Amino acid sequence: MAARDTAGALAAPLPDPGPLDLDTATQLARRALDRCDALAAHSEHPDHLARRCLTGAMADAHATLRGWMEQAGLTVEVDAIGNLRGVIGSTGPDEPRLVIGSHLDTIRDAGKYDGPLGVVLGLTMVEAIRELGIELPYAVEVVGFSDEEGVRFGRPFLGSLALVGKLKPADLALTDDAGTTVAEAMDTFAPGRELADARLDPETTVGYLELHIEQGPVLESAGHPVGVVEAIAGHRWETVHFTGEAGHAGTTPMDLRRDAMTAAAELVLAVEDLARRADGLVATVGDVTARPGGNNVIAGRAAVEVDARSADAGVLERALLDLRAIAADIARRRGLTVEHEVHFDQAPVKMDAGLRALLREAVADAGQALHELPSGAGHDARILAPTIPSAMLFLRSPGGLSHHPDERVHAPDVAVALRVAVAFLVRLAARFEARPEITGQP
Amino acid sequence: MAARDTAGALAAPLPDPGPLDLDTATQLARRALDRCDALAAHSEHPDHLARRCLTGAMADAHATLRGWMEQAGLTVEVDAIGNLRGVIGSTGPDEPRLVIGSHLDTIRDAGKYDGPLGVVLGLTMVEAIRELGIELPYAVEVVGFSDEEGVRFGRPFLGSLALVGKLKPADLALTDDAGTTVAEAMDTFAPGRELADARLDPETTVGYLELHIEQGPVLESAGHPVGVVEAIAGHRWETVHFTGEAGHAGTTPMDLRRDAMTAAAELVLAVEDLARRADGLVATVGDVTARPGGNNVIAGRAAVEVDARSADAGVLERALLDLRAIAADIARRRGLTVEHEVHFDQAPVKMDAGLRALLREAVADAGQALHELPSGAGHDARILAPTIPSAMLFLRSPGGLSHHPDERVHAPDVAVALRVAVAFLVRLAARFEARPEITGQP
Repeated sequence: MAARDTAGALAAPLPDPGPLDLDTATQLARRALDRCDALAAHSEHPDHLARRCLTGAMADAHATLRGWMEQAGLTVEVDAIGNLRGVIGSTGPDEPRLVIGSHLDTIRDAGKYDGPLGVVLGLTMVEAIRELGIELPYAVEVVGFSDEEGVRFGRPFLGSLALVGKLKPADLALTDDAGTTVAEAMDTFAPGRELADARLDPETTVGYLELHIEQGPVLESAGHPVGVVEAIAGHRWETVHFTGEAGHAGTTPMDLRRDAMTAAAELVLAVEDLARRADGLVATVGDVTARPGGNNVIAGRAAVEVDARSADAGVLERALLDLRAIAADIARRRGLTVEHEVHFDQAPVKMDAGLRALLREAVADAGQALHELPSGAGHDARILAPTIPSAMLFLRSPGGLSHHPDERVHAPDVAVALRVAVAFLVRLAARFEARPEITGQP
Repeated sequence: MAARDTAGALAAPLPDPGPLDLDTATQLARRALDRCDALAAHSEHPDHLARRCLTGAMADAHATLRGWMEQAGLTVEVDAIGNLRGVIGSTGPDEPRLVIGSHLDTIRDAGKYDGPLGVVLGLTMVEAIRELGIELPYAVEVVGFSDEEGVRFGRPFLGSLALVGKLKPADLALTDDAGTTVAEAMDTFAPGRELADARLDPETTVGYLELHIEQGPVLESAGHPVGVVEAIAGHRWETVHFTGEAGHAGTTPMDLRRDAMTAAAELVLAVEDLARRADGLVATVGDVTARPGGNNVIAGRAAVEVDARSADAGVLERALLDLRAIAADIARRRGLTVEHEVHFDQAPVKMDAGLRALLREAVADAGQALHELPSGAGHDARILAPTIPSAMLFLRSPGGLSHHPDERVHAPDVAVALRVAVAFLVRLAARFEARPEITGQP
């Protein structure tokens, strides 16, 4: 027991390091990173990486990825919403299938790994399995999601929503900056497809696995190359609007002011204080907009952007109730009015208990200490999890940096992630053969 | 003594209400307000009042005002910087002269009284003196300043700076949005003038008087139609820049953050607290700019616009030193860096003691209780005061409202201001005849 409890002992390579050895994993990791470089060349802008869904740059990325997939023996199609989907194995109507994927779209001026790394690693896992001569008792589908970032149409997760039949007519009517609707862009990008055909069959889909960079500093700070995701945090974004009275900064005595900026400042600090005191809550004010705005005018209005997240629904709910009470108190004391505008409200989603257990075992197989953490960011797994048993493995983000062109990932961490992922596939196969119903919400 | 100390007793009309009776003052006030309406029709925009210096709209306003001035017997000229200047009385080279004025330019979407009311009342004072058959022992010059707001070239007080020879070559090289320099605009608006000819002679100019709306709530709150300005507050505008580290709002734990927005919020509240605790200080943060900015990103940088004003140089200086110490402490505790960028730093300027004493007596002549107050806003008197003995009379601003199209002034308050101003002219005449050197810095 003492040895198992010691992270250092487990982090050292074990004598039998799972199905994929270190040298092979290292080579595969290098090729995966080269592929991320190659995909990053497909951009809408010559000077930086920007690849939105259903664009020419995305079609180019598909062509490159399709080549690699077909070379690996996958049968490749593009569905109606523009997801690239490659399948290998028994693909009959009642055959079980594991889906592995992430997204291919990027933000503006993006790094190379947020999304594409997970797609490339899905393909690499298939290649590793073939190289190891392992026959899996389920088909594997590698998906490159069309849209997760929501940059083009202002609505994230268009790709994964289609897989669970949750893309609404209203979503298809959304327009980009040029006035093109989602429906029109779909028809140009992948004509003749039916959206219904994009849906996964929940009866035969045994699970969804996503590998993704952490995009935060937790794994680096704890000294772990990879981590198993426990849950994807619930996320509320609301704007708190304070309204007081604008006035001349030079002529209005302090005791006759109804300053919306000072109210906003109180709320910013209250948000920080709430999050510091609550376990498992992060809360942020990333922006405050004052009106009229300017050095010489007292703000008559201030809009405070509050972003609160927790993997624990109760913690999040209590924090948001506290926030309302605090904002009301600030407004009352200062003679202002306050309104709350909720833009986004998603409950936390737990990862599938059965698949998480397999991932934990796979981490040990690969000779790694276990680190489990919630995901503060949203991912495609968030959309699939309520319908398809889902699991996620995070890779350490150097400096916690993401959504930035300097976003990186350590090559040895990619090798570790591949060894964990291949061990997961093998363990899933073993469990699946013994008892097909291995998954289940906890 | 008891009666003089009672504001109510003094506020009641006196048996002999100074040289200008209430009925005449009321009629003149009505005409002055009609003239403000007429001037407000000269705008660069059809839908709102916007009149910048050296524009066609300003030329139109000049034509209207020139007509009224010439009808009242003034000799009218436009100087090189575009100030409209009407003189009446003995204008020989060694003859004494009192200057009365304010500015004719406006902000965008302005009210009708901030500036033009003071110019119109200068002319009305001359008309009242003539109507009363009074011969003044000094010339009177009514000035409509070209630029006080600084809207067109980003540099306020161009008009009054020219009167004291402080307009620099660098000022003349400033450009507007269309790339036109001040020098070019001057040459188009008033060709062939020499800037040197715009200067007042400090030897013969006995003083400068400016009537202006308060632009704040102090007189209304104290229940006075007019107030005598003690000093124009010193004014420091600086931007405090905090630099921390941007990060993902969902993935960065609270204890690993270096959030510039929460630092900014602490400073906003500290600025308010400093001003509340110091006597005679107002301090404001009217805007905070976060970068990258957005609901889902921790601010890596925040710029806090601090505006601090006091009529007491020592109070202002102490507050600014305290501010530096507080900002440094915030930065140290939060692991950030801080920089201060000073945009504007003007020392307080006292109004001339001799002219203020005359104004106080004139307030009593008009049957009004005395209320003295500092000016938190800058005015042309601020620029002239170091060179020319200067005084200001404020008119009550209903609701404290200014820099807004709904800016108003009560007609009875304008009548009171006229009675005070005419009494001032008469008292100045009496003092001047007895002892020409009536003015002097306290």
